[in-house]
Amino acid sequence: MRYDIAIIGTGPGGVSAAITSKIRNKNILLIGSNELSKKLNSAEEINNYPGFPKVKGSILKDALKTHLDSLGIEITEDRINAVYAMGDYFMLQGKNSYESTSVILACGMENVKSIDGEEDLVGNGVSYCATCDGALYKNKEVMVVGYNDESIEETEFLAELCSKVTFIPMGKVKPSFEKSNIEIKNQKPIKIKAQMRKRIVEFEDNSEMIVDCVFILRDAIKPGTLVPGLETENSNVVCGKDMSTNIPGCFVCGDIAGAPYQYIKAAGEGNIAALSAVKYITNKK
Amino acid sequence: MRYDIAIIGTGPGGVSAAITSKIRNKNILLIGSNELSKKLNSAEEINNYPGFPKVKGSILKDALKTHLDSLGIEITEDRINAVYAMGDYFMLQGKNSYESTSVILACGMENVKSIDGEEDLVGNGVSYCATCDGALYKNKEVMVVGYNDESIEETEFLAELCSKVTFIPMGKVKPSFEKSNIEIKNQKPIKIKAQMRKRIVEFEDNSEMIVDCVFILRDAIKPGTLVPGLETENSNVVCGKDMSTNIPGCFVCGDIAGAPYQYIKAAGEGNIAALSAVKYITNKK
Repeated sequence: MRYDIAIIGTGPGGVSAAITSKIRNKNILLIGSNELSKKLNSAEEINNYPGFPKVKGSILKDALKTHLDSLGIEITEDRINAVYAMGDYFMLQGKNSYESTSVILACGMENVKSIDGEEDLVGNGVSYCATCDGALYKNKEVMVVGYNDESIEETEFLAELCSKVTFIPMGKVKPSFEKSNIEIKNQKPIKIKAQMRKRIVEFEDNSEMIVDCVFILRDAIKPGTLVPGLETENSNVVCGKDMSTNIPGCFVCGDIAGAPYQYIKAAGEGNIAALSAVKYITNKK
Repeated sequence: MRYDIAIIGTGPGGVSAAITSKIRNKNILLIGSNELSKKLNSAEEINNYPGFPKVKGSILKDALKTHLDSLGIEITEDRINAVYAMGDYFMLQGKNSYESTSVILACGMENVKSIDGEEDLVGNGVSYCATCDGALYKNKEVMVVGYNDESIEETEFLAELCSKVTFIPMGKVKPSFEKSNIEIKNQKPIKIKAQMRKRIVEFEDNSEMIVDCVFILRDAIKPGTLVPGLETENSNVVCGKDMSTNIPGCFVCGDIAGAPYQYIKAAGEGNIAALSAVKYITNKK
């Protein structure tokens, strides 16, 4: 089955894009979390989303969820690790794979520097998804560079498959594991190199480690890595006023499209991106 | 007194710009109507303003008004007929005049063709505001080309000052007057010419009429006429992604900034325009 519009991300931008796409009778796929957005949900008070004075983030999130429900829009809980432009359509790779005529990236922005060497080795001994690629490393030794709590769960999953998992906690992550084949290493990785089929990780203290795969688990993937060929500038995607990118059929909205990083700006752009995608589909026919 | 940011228009774009400007501690002037927006207020059902599923326009309008009230933002009820870029600041002319360091145009778009000759004679025997210019034509003969119900009230006001008022109903306007010096003429004006200090109006049936002033009363004024020197394309203002125009310090949002003509898009742009105006003011200092 091929969708008309696949929307990646369930913050205010993605939700707005989904609502307008649905109203325009498109066959849509909305990929994200039923919790919509961790950032929104935990916002103490939002003052400038017009119509919701001094609102707690969780209340606005509930209102957005109710809006989706009222239109029968379901959320597919998955994390997309790669989007490939196939010419006539897009292929989205997550736990499952999906096909769509157009795609709207609404997956936010994470200002995390990638590790030296990481981007060159993605899909080749460096992975962004334990669920997707774990099975490839059965009985092998892997490393998890974990930036969030989900990465702890994914490490436990990997420990069921792999002979050994080394966990590198990043940022505020505080891991604790029961499985004996998981080891925590408190050192910052600075470089990943390939040596034959093995990957060598260098650390700040000049120590090294050799593994079969490095899983790097962050909340977001750099847009240029997510969609090969996508034109970016720093952490943002280069886009026009109609939210189009350099790849025909690929649109953006919200933080990934650049500053200002504001909920109502994201919602407005979601609307524009959806209508641009509708126009793209119409013109293709 | 000079404001930091003057916002013209109280639809979702202007309201959003006012909210964000106020939150950024700017001294703002919001000009429009306490009813906010006739178009919004009369919308039967809006489906794609995220957070308000299937909402009547009047309910969304009330929510926006409550939001303004919660921040102590007052609306100045006036109609701005001209905005002059004075170099260091802007001068706004309505019933009253106002000074502001920056200006955000959020006054919507009206797809009405101007009358041949109209734009050349504005401020010179053609006026967009009876309240502003009526007194100049005491005991003279004037014409009102009226596109809305307010134009009927303004005609009654003019009839108190002028010796004779001819009312030309446009669109769906259905006038009835009691004053004996008001005459209704059901003909479409096609051209306005100057002849010494008089103005000659030509009609579709080739009839002509000579008056001292022609008041043309519509809901909106063409942006290029409202702000002399503003770059426009058809009925829209040419603007960047940061909602800036060719005139430094002058920003736009909502329908006046171009398609799609959607409430949530206007609200998103209002946020961007406000933050761009804040940046403009900061850089000036």
